[in-house]
Amino acid sequence: MAQIPASQQFASDNYAGICPEVWEGMRKANEGSVPAYGDDPWTNGAAEAFRTLFGTACEVFFVFNGTAANSLALAALCQSYNSVVCSAYAHVETDECGAPEFFSNGSKLLVARNDQAKLRPDDIRALATCRSDIHYPKPKAVTITQPTETGEVYTLDEIREIAATCRALGLRLHMDGARFANACAALGCSPAEMTWQAGVDVLCFGGTKNGMGVGEAILFFDPALAEGFDYRCKQAGQLASKMRFISAPWIGLLETGAWLRNGAHGNGCAKALARRVAALPGVSLMFPVEANAVFLTAPVSVLDGLRARGWRFYTFIGGGARFMFAWDADPARVEQLAGDIEALAQ
Amino acid sequence: MAQIPASQQFASDNYAGICPEVWEGMRKANEGSVPAYGDDPWTNGAAEAFRTLFGTACEVFFVFNGTAANSLALAALCQSYNSVVCSAYAHVETDECGAPEFFSNGSKLLVARNDQAKLRPDDIRALATCRSDIHYPKPKAVTITQPTETGEVYTLDEIREIAATCRALGLRLHMDGARFANACAALGCSPAEMTWQAGVDVLCFGGTKNGMGVGEAILFFDPALAEGFDYRCKQAGQLASKMRFISAPWIGLLETGAWLRNGAHGNGCAKALARRVAALPGVSLMFPVEANAVFLTAPVSVLDGLRARGWRFYTFIGGGARFMFAWDADPARVEQLAGDIEALAQ
Amino acid sequence: MAQIPASQQFASDNYAGICPEVWEGMRKANEGSVPAYGDDPWTNGAAEAFRTLFGTACEVFFVFNGTAANSLALAALCQSYNSVVCSAYAHVETDECGAPEFFSNGSKLLVARNDQAKLRPDDIRALATCRSDIHYPKPKAVTITQPTETGEVYTLDEIREIAATCRALGLRLHMDGARFANACAALGCSPAEMTWQAGVDVLCFGGTKNGMGVGEAILFFDPALAEGFDYRCKQAGQLASKMRFISAPWIGLLETGAWLRNGAHGNGCAKALARRVAALPGVSLMFPVEANAVFLTAPVSVLDGLRARGWRFYTFIGGGARFMFAWDADPARVEQLAGDIEALAQ
Amino acid sequence: MAQIPASQQFASDNYAGICPEVWEGMRKANEGSVPAYGDDPWTNGAAEAFRTLFGTACEVFFVFNGTAANSLALAALCQSYNSVVCSAYAHVETDECGAPEFFSNGSKLLVARNDQAKLRPDDIRALATCRSDIHYPKPKAVTITQPTETGEVYTLDEIREIAATCRALGLRLHMDGARFANACAALGCSPAEMTWQAGVDVLCFGGTKNGMGVGEAILFFDPALAEGFDYRCKQAGQLASKMRFISAPWIGLLETGAWLRNGAHGNGCAKALARRVAALPGVSLMFPVEANAVFLTAPVSVLDGLRARGWRFYTFIGGGARFMFAWDADPARVEQLAGDIEALAQ
Repeated sequence: MAQIPASQQFASDNYAGICPEVWEGMRKANEGSVPAYGDDPWTNGAAEAFRTLFGTACEVFFVFNGTAANSLALAALCQSYNSVVCSAYAHVETDECGAPEFFSNGSKLLVARNDQAKLRPDDIRALATCRSDIHYPKPKAVTITQPTETGEVYTLDEIREIAATCRALGLRLHMDGARFANACAALGCSPAEMTWQAGVDVLCFGGTKNGMGVGEAILFFDPALAEGFDYRCKQAGQLASKMRFISAPWIGLLETGAWLRNGAHGNGCAKALARRVAALPGVSLMFPVEANAVFLTAPVSVLDGLRARGWRFYTFIGGGARFMFAWDADPARVEQLAGDIEALAQ
Repeated sequence: MAQIPASQQFASDNYAGICPEVWEGMRKANEGSVPAYGDDPWTNGAAEAFRTLFGTACEVFFVFNGTAANSLALAALCQSYNSVVCSAYAHVETDECGAPEFFSNGSKLLVARNDQAKLRPDDIRALATCRSDIHYPKPKAVTITQPTETGEVYTLDEIREIAATCRALGLRLHMDGARFANACAALGCSPAEMTWQAGVDVLCFGGTKNGMGVGEAILFFDPALAEGFDYRCKQAGQLASKMRFISAPWIGLLETGAWLRNGAHGNGCAKALARRVAALPGVSLMFPVEANAVFLTAPVSVLDGLRARGWRFYTFIGGGARFMFAWDADPARVEQLAGDIEALAQ
Repeated sequence: MAQIPASQQFASDNYAGICPEVWEGMRKANEGSVPAYGDDPWTNGAAEAFRTLFGTACEVFFVFNGTAANSLALAALCQSYNSVVCSAYAHVETDECGAPEFFSNGSKLLVARNDQAKLRPDDIRALATCRSDIHYPKPKAVTITQPTETGEVYTLDEIREIAATCRALGLRLHMDGARFANACAALGCSPAEMTWQAGVDVLCFGGTKNGMGVGEAILFFDPALAEGFDYRCKQAGQLASKMRFISAPWIGLLETGAWLRNGAHGNGCAKALARRVAALPGVSLMFPVEANAVFLTAPVSVLDGLRARGWRFYTFIGGGARFMFAWDADPARVEQLAGDIEALAQ
Repeated sequence: MAQIPASQQFASDNYAGICPEVWEGMRKANEGSVPAYGDDPWTNGAAEAFRTLFGTACEVFFVFNGTAANSLALAALCQSYNSVVCSAYAHVETDECGAPEFFSNGSKLLVARNDQAKLRPDDIRALATCRSDIHYPKPKAVTITQPTETGEVYTLDEIREIAATCRALGLRLHMDGARFANACAALGCSPAEMTWQAGVDVLCFGGTKNGMGVGEAILFFDPALAEGFDYRCKQAGQLASKMRFISAPWIGLLETGAWLRNGAHGNGCAKALARRVAALPGVSLMFPVEANAVFLTAPVSVLDGLRARGWRFYTFIGGGARFMFAWDADPARVEQLAGDIEALAQ
């Protein structure tokens, strides 16, 4: 069956396959029988691996995908009449087909009005305090995406400041870490520093974009928030019967260090591309390249030319293009892509 | 890491691992890059494999687990104010933590009052016609589990009669086929005969219990019912980004015939056990053994003795035991289990 | 426009109009302007009247009808994955078209299996402790209807025992008091004795059946349970903009004592009818007559004869009839009805 | 009990009481007994009065308030994964605490980005066609508020153009007519012209702001859209048991012509005020005064001065004020208010 050559696709980190360490984790788990629904050594081991990595006794849950991970986490923080502050670029707002509203039965997203992917303390304060009447859904949580949907990375100070704002306003802080590993690699900090030590209450740690086939992890740093979450997952169709197959891969990913290597690899490719094309005539970076994405504007002729040469990437109205680098991106091909852009931009 | 020896566990077909044909299907799919969210050759191929197997142009969707498959299918048939007729043993009623109500936002299950797993046309008629006032959620669908939760198999005539009753009452017929392959193997009929040719509107075809790691398929035989179902799956957290990993395994399962072999194998083990223990003193079968489960009552001493010898099975209050045979059940061990029961029952 | 003569209808206490004290309450409230959404003196006054009547600083909310009152109260006690124990006769189970499931986004009702309207501590214990696995929605609340749908009244001891059972099991106790006033009149106890002093956590106090046109009150005796309930009501379409018109009537009802008189009056009519017909040949009471309802079985000829003489009542399959007496039932006509039954039963 | 003198409050048309014609309608309905839940002559009569007024055989439903009316109507048009296009000023977006999302179980509001209350065909086209992928909730309906939340009135041509856009895009058109009567009075057109003849599919006709105490009507001009809506209302807690008390008032309102007189009266007061203050120094109208609201900006000293003299109105950050005129606004007092503004603005 025909696939896109991995080497030419930089459209999405969801186009990539399963990395070897995850595959090996699955292979090992596929021996013998174990109890269903997570009451098995692999699932316990994976949860333990997270607690070790984060250096804290967090509550860990495994679900199938990011839509569910983020939506369930927010539903756990909110009642239906609560609201969640987010950026206008937040994936939960723009690309989840109303999933957060569905899982929470109506919690509204309060979207920051400015045009940037990073949420600022001022945005949060504005949305959370502009009204206090009963006709406005009571703000209860804030969600930030790390790295953002535009490939930017919140600094530790930015996260801490956001968390402090949340605490001052009685809000809980959720981190959508669909590409959490990329952010860790970018900042060179520990997972703990970027989350609970900075004031994050709940993290959705992305597995799929990090090299898994299926699966995300939800970490509650405040165990009180996790009360009943196992039932919530079950009712919402997110409790795997053969749980080991979405938990064991994490062991492969975390214990081998592949999670961080994969993140660093994607970031490196993005930096490499950015370095070579940023100064080309007619080409400009739309956002700082801090993780594994490069957004650039370029003449239509350049983008058309790239497509004609077989490159795959996302395009936006008006000449924007997104290149996203997964764990399997081939650096030689990234250089070749850069070369093609150079050639076309002349 | 320690597992239960597969050879001694007959507690659940969810305890089994991934069968070789599925594994091979995943392995093949893990080459190169493909577009995300199901727009890939593997997913198209798997849907096509279902259409070939069922001999009809049905609409096929792939989701993560049975909770979601059944709940989403019923939600597609109902509005929140509708109701669904089911047996008192129906998994959707007894073991889904309110998932059908959650996904449908309130559709009520109308539970047959008699004490058997098979729903009868009379049950349906009684529940669907006893009231027509606005205070009673308007019946819209019927769900049957094939084979039932007690291991019984509806005959084709029984299904046809149920479907005729549904049509006469303006109800849609849903089949929970968590162990669909076992039913096919038991009846020796084609998938088509047991579903759309018999009047079934929607089928949830179980992959997990059939040898997959993660994944179920939903087949709409009336395409009109599938309208918007792709959005429904997305919003409900059931759209896999790397879809190929829950679709490609089906190719392995279906095209090799493993789906049916696996079902027949489990059934054969159940029959073998039933044959040897049915007539033992103090032992009796609770339900006809028609698929891959054996439910029996036996003296406590027998059940305790089995557990002491390392056998794993489900037990119920009052001396009931369930033995469930998966694709990986070892016939020699089944004979050994039968021998132990014989020895203990003397 | 043609109505049923009030004097001949005993089908439902919802068929009755607005009692004079309520009308007067509305009339007074219809002077001048007041702020909307409950921030007005009438609403404050009505809440205060409840607190005075119940002798405790409860939180009071006013909503439009009983469906919403009970469903919202239960939703406040539960998350979607929780369950509520109730009797098989509970109105929330039999006559709300799935409203409790809708408002709670999926909380399941666990229905006692025995065939009686009064829930017993044993029923609660059985349903709340039979399972503790994640596939069974976690029990969180119990609801009792006082008086029951069959016109029976829980004694104070029965309520206390139920409440003690709830506390022992970590469950909250909700009372559906659609005809709360009738129960108070029947027991001759104070509202406090029947509710918070007996261990009830939340009460829905019925206004409509008590003589109002529109409106029910929800009383939280544990203020912690009321957190966010104002938002919950707003979001669920139960916050009246001209709130005074569903709050002020309560002042008329409570402060004049009409609430209790109305209840006692209905009860008296039921007792009067029951006394005269209980011993007639072929006639028998289906349930003890303790509030304002009389359920009886009688030969079809009797019931047909009554209808032919213009009497209105509810009938059930197999010869059952329900006579329900509202605040406006005319005792002379009740005697006449009794006379007709006597005549027909000879 | 102390109220605000009606004569000094222009904060909201929800602060007003019940108009005489409505009161008389309720008084008449409070005679004798009638069946519950709308199966009564008053409810039939009110529905008939609507059909007469609109000159078409529409389906009519009566619910308690505007939150529910709009949310239920939109829920009837959408599945949970659909979306609704609205203006940034739409009440359903800004002031319903997430009710539309709650009733629909997650339908998302797509908010026009421009800063005006009137939705334009271009806004609709932009939001409904910018994306067609599965991650964006499929647009299914458009809602316009007539008159808008800013007191502007869509012309018939504007409505027709919007409706044509909807039809071209396969969208249904909902009209939030919380102040529908004011719009009719403003345009001098018939209800039919402004709704079904212009292409509106569903109208929520506001009763509360028009002089009722409680109650709104929902009119489906395409009966197919009303299928199951009675069940939907019941389940959502919007079916009144003593229905006549929210239906009969409409007879008083419609058949006496009070509905239109009330609307015209409020509009007249607004015009009168606007005429006198529009040209004052430092004062300016924020929006064209076309219905019963006057929004103006004025120096803080002016607004403070008004409040000091006892006037009640809504204020916004930065010196905006809203004056809203109900059926009971006293023209002499409106002149007096104008005089005070004149005096303060000098």
